[in-house]
Amino acid sequence: MTEGEADIPKVDADSGEPAYVLDARRVGQIVDAAEIGALDALARLLAPMHPADIADLLEQIGAAERERLLRLWPTGFDGNVLSELDDGLREDVLAFVPQELLARTVRHLESDDLVDLVENLPDGQQRKVLGLLDNTARIAVEQALRYPEYTAGRLMQRETVALPVDWTVGEAIDHLRAASRLPDQFYHVMLVDPLHRVRGQVNIGRLMGSERDVRLDAIEDENFHPIPVTQSEADVAYAFNQYHMVTAPVVNTEGRLLGVITIDDAMIVQSEEAEEDFLRLGGAGESRPSDGVWETVRGRFPWLAVNLAATGLSAFAISQFAGAIEQIVALAILMPIVASMGGSAGTQSLTVAVRALATKDLTASNALRVLRREALAGLINGVAFALVIGLLGEVLFGVPWLGLVLALAMIWNMVIAALTGVLVPLGLDRIGIDPALASGTFVSTMTDVMGFVAFLGLATLILL
Amino acid sequence: MTEGEADIPKVDADSGEPAYVLDARRVGQIVDAAEIGALDALARLLAPMHPADIADLLEQIGAAERERLLRLWPTGFDGNVLSELDDGLREDVLAFVPQELLARTVRHLESDDLVDLVENLPDGQQRKVLGLLDNTARIAVEQALRYPEYTAGRLMQRETVALPVDWTVGEAIDHLRAASRLPDQFYHVMLVDPLHRVRGQVNIGRLMGSERDVRLDAIEDENFHPIPVTQSEADVAYAFNQYHMVTAPVVNTEGRLLGVITIDDAMIVQSEEAEEDFLRLGGAGESRPSDGVWETVRGRFPWLAVNLAATGLSAFAISQFAGAIEQIVALAILMPIVASMGGSAGTQSLTVAVRALATKDLTASNALRVLRREALAGLINGVAFALVIGLLGEVLFGVPWLGLVLALAMIWNMVIAALTGVLVPLGLDRIGIDPALASGTFVSTMTDVMGFVAFLGLATLILL
Repeated sequence: MTEGEADIPKVDADSGEPAYVLDARRVGQIVDAAEIGALDALARLLAPMHPADIADLLEQIGAAERERLLRLWPTGFDGNVLSELDDGLREDVLAFVPQELLARTVRHLESDDLVDLVENLPDGQQRKVLGLLDNTARIAVEQALRYPEYTAGRLMQRETVALPVDWTVGEAIDHLRAASRLPDQFYHVMLVDPLHRVRGQVNIGRLMGSERDVRLDAIEDENFHPIPVTQSEADVAYAFNQYHMVTAPVVNTEGRLLGVITIDDAMIVQSEEAEEDFLRLGGAGESRPSDGVWETVRGRFPWLAVNLAATGLSAFAISQFAGAIEQIVALAILMPIVASMGGSAGTQSLTVAVRALATKDLTASNALRVLRREALAGLINGVAFALVIGLLGEVLFGVPWLGLVLALAMIWNMVIAALTGVLVPLGLDRIGIDPALASGTFVSTMTDVMGFVAFLGLATLILL
Repeated sequence: MTEGEADIPKVDADSGEPAYVLDARRVGQIVDAAEIGALDALARLLAPMHPADIADLLEQIGAAERERLLRLWPTGFDGNVLSELDDGLREDVLAFVPQELLARTVRHLESDDLVDLVENLPDGQQRKVLGLLDNTARIAVEQALRYPEYTAGRLMQRETVALPVDWTVGEAIDHLRAASRLPDQFYHVMLVDPLHRVRGQVNIGRLMGSERDVRLDAIEDENFHPIPVTQSEADVAYAFNQYHMVTAPVVNTEGRLLGVITIDDAMIVQSEEAEEDFLRLGGAGESRPSDGVWETVRGRFPWLAVNLAATGLSAFAISQFAGAIEQIVALAILMPIVASMGGSAGTQSLTVAVRALATKDLTASNALRVLRREALAGLINGVAFALVIGLLGEVLFGVPWLGLVLALAMIWNMVIAALTGVLVPLGLDRIGIDPALASGTFVSTMTDVMGFVAFLGLATLILL
C-alpha cells in the first residue's frame, strides 16, 4: 500500500464532519508550500493523495496558484491526474507535464482511459500524447476515436478476456493461470464462438467456485446484455443501472466482440449525465466548477438573452392592458402572483417530466396518464390556492369581484402550467432536443404571458 | 440463457430509435392480454422481460390495469420484481404475490437485496417476509436494519470472501476452489488479520494471473478504501465514483470487516441521489413517476404554499409603490423584466452552487473564489443587459430617465441574484439543510422583492 491517511474516510455519521471533502487545511498548506517553494513539504502533502483528489485540488485553487504549483512540481501531476481533470483544465495542465513522465504514465493506462484522456484535447496535444504510445496502443486509441463521441465505442476497453464457448471450467482456469498478460481489471470472461461472436459471459468468482468439468456455458451469467458499439453512452449507463450489470460486451452489428465496458465507466457517465441535466434545468448548462469569470459570463449569457426576449413578451402582454392598470392599480400589485404560481407549478411538472424522460419512466405507454394526472393535480391545487388568494384579494383591496378574477386566473394558469410542463418536454424529446435544455424557458414564458393575459384580460372583462 | 429478444438492445444510433425504452406495443399487448384473461399470451410476453423492466411496466400502467394483471398472473411478479419496484408500489404488489412463491424467491436474494426489499415495508409485511427466511438470513437482515437508514450498514452485503493477509496466491486459489459456497457475485477477496481487521483487498482477476507462491499482500489493490459502517450512502456513492472502486470493505470503528459494498449498489444510490436533487431543485421533491393524482397534489402543495407566501411579499413590496405606478403605468409593464432577469441569473448561480456542493466541488477552499466569480459574472452580464434594456426602455416609452432606472435596477438585481445564488446554498449546507430543497424559493423571493423594490424605488427617487 502506497496510499496514506488522506484516503481513509472520516466517520462522518459519528463526527458530523462531511466525509471526502477536500481538506481545506491541507489545500491551504499545499498552496503555502508552493508559494515559498518548499518542495519537500509539497511532496509530503501530495504523496498520499489519490489522483482524483489532486485533480479536484487543481480545479479548486486559483489560476495563479495552479500555475505556481505546476511549475514547481510538475512530476506530481502525471497521466493519472490528467485523466481525472475537467476537460477544460486538462489542456492547461498537460502543457506543464514533462514529456518523459507523461510517456511513462500513459503507457500504463488501459485503452478506455487513454481515449478518455485524449479525446477532447486539441489536435496538437492529442498527437503529442499518441506519439508517446507504442504502436499497438496507438492504433487501438486511433480506432476508438473513429467511433462517434459519446458512444459505447469510445467508452469500451479493447483488452478483453475471451474464451471459446465450448470450453470447460478446468480449461478456462488453466488458460488464465498460464496467460502472460491479463487486463488489470476484469470481472467476467466473455464466451465467443469461432467467428468471435459473443455468446455469453461468466463471472470469474463463479468460475472459481465451479467444478473443473462443468462447461462454461452452463455457468454463464443471466445478466448478459451485449451493447451495440454505436449505442449512446447515456443508454449504456442506463442499461448498467437498470440491469445491475458489472461488465457488458460491446459488439458490432454481426455480434462480434469488440471490447468490454465495465460498470465503473458507466457510473462516471451516469454522474456526468445527471450533472448535465441538472445544470441545464437551471439554465447553466455550460458551467464547470473550475470556470473563470469570462467563461461564466459567456456560459450564462445565451440563456439570459432568451429570458430577456421572453420577458419582453410578458411586458408586451401587460402593455396591452395599460388602461386597466391605470384604472385599478391593484392589478399591478396582484398580477405577479398569478404568473409566479403558474411558474412554480409549471416548473414542478416539467421537472418531473424531464427527469422521467431521462430515466425512461415517461414513455408512450404512460404519457397520457401522466398528462392527465398533472392537469388534474394542477386543477385541484389551483382551486385550493384560488380560494385562499381570491378571498384575500376580495378582502384586502375592496374592489368588488377582484377576488373572483384572481381566483379564475389562478386556476386557469395552473392548469396551463401543468399541461405545458408535460407537453413541452415530451415534444422537445420527440424532435430530438434535450428537454432539460430548453423546457424551462418555454414553460416560464408560457405561464408568465398566460398569467398576465388571463388576469388582466378577465379584469378588463369583469371589472371595467 | 433464459432471456430472449426483449433484452437485446436496439442499435439506437443507427435506427434513431431510443434504446431500452419499454416497448409501448408490448405494454399494450400485455394490458390487452390481461383484459381478456389470456394467460398463455401473458406468460409468453412477460417471460423474456428482465425483472427491472417488469417493475417499470407495473409502474407505468394504470392502477386498475395493474390490479387486473396481478390478480391474473401473480406468479409473474416474484421477489426479483419486488426488489425493483418503487417503494410506494412495492407494498401494493406484495399483497398479491403468493406466500410460497415469495418464500422461494427471497431465499435466493443476498443480504443487501433483502434489506433493500424489506426496509421500507410496513411492519406487518416486513415481519411476513422475514418469517419466510431461514434463521441465518433473518438474523443478518435484522442486524442490518439496526444500522441507521441511508448508511453503509444498510447497503452492504454480509456475504464476503475474506482470507488471511499472509496467505499466498496458491493457498487462496486452492481454498476458493474447495469452498462449498461462494457469494453469487464477488470481485475481490478481502485480506484480514487474525482479529478480522481488513488490511487490503485483491482483485480476483489479478489473483488468477499471479504465480502460486506470491503473497496476497504483494498483489493487493492500490484502490483500497475501507468504508465506516455508519457512513452516509451518498458519501459511499461519491467515494465509488471518485476513486473508481468496484468493491469496498465496510468496517466498524476498530477496522473489523463487517461486509462489502459493490459498485452496482453504489451506482443505484448515485442515481437516486441525483434524482432527489433534480426533483428538489424543481420544487417537486416528493414526486415519483408512479404517483396518483392525490399523491401528486399533496406532494406539490407545500412548495406552492411557500411560493404563495413569497409572492405575497412581492405583492406587498409593489403595493408600497402604488402611487408611482398610478402616475407612470410603464413601471407596471417593465417591473417583471427586472424581477425575471434576476430570477434567471439567481437560478443559474444557485444551480451551479447546489450541484458543486453535491459533488464536493464547492468547498471551504474555493467558496470565496466562486462567490467572487459569480458576482463579477452577474455584474458583467447585468451591465450588458442593462445597456440593451435601458436603451429600449428610453426609446419605447418616452419617459425621460426611465431607461436609466431600468438599467440600474437590472445591474443591482443581477449582482444580488449571483450573491444570494451562492450564499444561500452555502448557508443551508452549513446548517445541515439540503440546499437543493430550499434554495430556489429563497433566491427567487429575494430576486423578485429586490427587483421590484429597486426598480420602483429608483423610479420614485429619480422620476417623480
